[in-house]
Amino acid sequence: MKNYRFLIEYDGTRYFGWQRQPNRNTIQGKLESVLAALCGKETEVIGAGRTDAGVHARGMVANARLDTGLEPEGIRDYCNRYLPDDIAVLDVKEVSPRFHARYNALGKTYRYTCYDGEVGPVFDRKYYWRLTEQPDLERMRKAAEMLKGEHDFRNFCVNPRMKKSTVRKVDRIDIVREGGYLRFFYHGTGFLQNMVRIMTGSLLEVGCGRMEPERIQEALLCGERCKAGPTAPAQGLCLMSVDYD
Amino acid sequence: MKNYRFLIEYDGTRYFGWQRQPNRNTIQGKLESVLAALCGKETEVIGAGRTDAGVHARGMVANARLDTGLEPEGIRDYCNRYLPDDIAVLDVKEVSPRFHARYNALGKTYRYTCYDGEVGPVFDRKYYWRLTEQPDLERMRKAAEMLKGEHDFRNFCVNPRMKKSTVRKVDRIDIVREGGYLRFFYHGTGFLQNMVRIMTGSLLEVGCGRMEPERIQEALLCGERCKAGPTAPAQGLCLMSVDYD
Repeated sequence: MKNYRFLIEYDGTRYFGWQRQPNRNTIQGKLESVLAALCGKETEVIGAGRTDAGVHARGMVANARLDTGLEPEGIRDYCNRYLPDDIAVLDVKEVSPRFHARYNALGKTYRYTCYDGEVGPVFDRKYYWRLTEQPDLERMRKAAEMLKGEHDFRNFCVNPRMKKSTVRKVDRIDIVREGGYLRFFYHGTGFLQNMVRIMTGSLLEVGCGRMEPERIQEALLCGERCKAGPTAPAQGLCLMSVDYD
Repeated sequence: MKNYRFLIEYDGTRYFGWQRQPNRNTIQGKLESVLAALCGKETEVIGAGRTDAGVHARGMVANARLDTGLEPEGIRDYCNRYLPDDIAVLDVKEVSPRFHARYNALGKTYRYTCYDGEVGPVFDRKYYWRLTEQPDLERMRKAAEMLKGEHDFRNFCVNPRMKKSTVRKVDRIDIVREGGYLRFFYHGTGFLQNMVRIMTGSLLEVGCGRMEPERIQEALLCGERCKAGPTAPAQGLCLMSVDYD
């Protein structure tokens, strides 16, 4: 049994998210069945984190312990031959037996893409959120400054009664316009469920003038989910990369 | 009745091509029904040309004579509200009553996209042809030189018994590599049915060493379709732009 690290790209449109669920299409489920076929026995794939239903990834990392005579490249090619065409294994490497994709993850970069131009482009229509207003970047950047740093993000989480700590550190939020595209880049040590989408929804409320930038501060400090903005839809979100030592 | 020129983008995956056909999804059919609803009567949309089933466009041009009180922008927005999300009207302009998208077209640019890297990218998987070999660019460029110019392209046409002239002029063929992407750009005054796909298939045969570059010359001169290469699949092809005065 050797331990392998996988770099994975997927279009999440058709999937109920990363995590295996009975009778549902999930990315982890698909990978596990292909690797089970390769090894002739049940195989667990450990992801760096979970992505929600409909969320995409260009750089998900996972690890799996496999008993196979194939070289890493052969494992990659085997996976790509049997995986559906909306999931691709970009790279496979043998790693230390102790490598754990979730426990060893030091940080993650997410990108949220919106489009606010006059006509929504057709070819990447499943990978952005179509806005009907044009948000003000400077207002959003001001609000983003308040989100940066270590905070209790419980109001930026779909599950505010979480028992584990809801303290997270977000050290980078960049908001970039390219034509009609508005892209939000988030880097942090970890993110709660829906946190990136709620941060994006909140920043857009500020950008469109429905919330004051200071409201972000209140949302971080008060006890109510409703102070934060709405959850931006899954299809604009993409996990770009996961950091390790 | 005013005459309007439309600039249209579409993902051709789900369609039986541009041209209206009874009981089939086509781009022209979709546009005509939306414009018929707008004007309250049957409306003809004249395209610069036809694209085959599965072929995409980023710059199809069409014209239609419409009786509507809407401004061109309003026509555009109306179309985009009612068209499916894989067709978009990028622009509408009022033009001279004599403008005819097909008769006035002076040239067209097509792009054919292949991918020959190790792992096929997921997000644009419907817009390239996945190659299993890595073709030689220099050999293909040499062969492309023979295709350039004015020739009888009857052997590069799906319908070699065409009654109309099969002489066409191709004045530009550029073959560009970007990472694992191989892109073929074709510019000419007009193209026969499947001509771009057969030229691409032939160039790839040369690039992969199964045909000599000189075979292209023979295919242009002899009377047999079989001298040319196979037809590259539709999904890699995209109509990029149409030239007018």
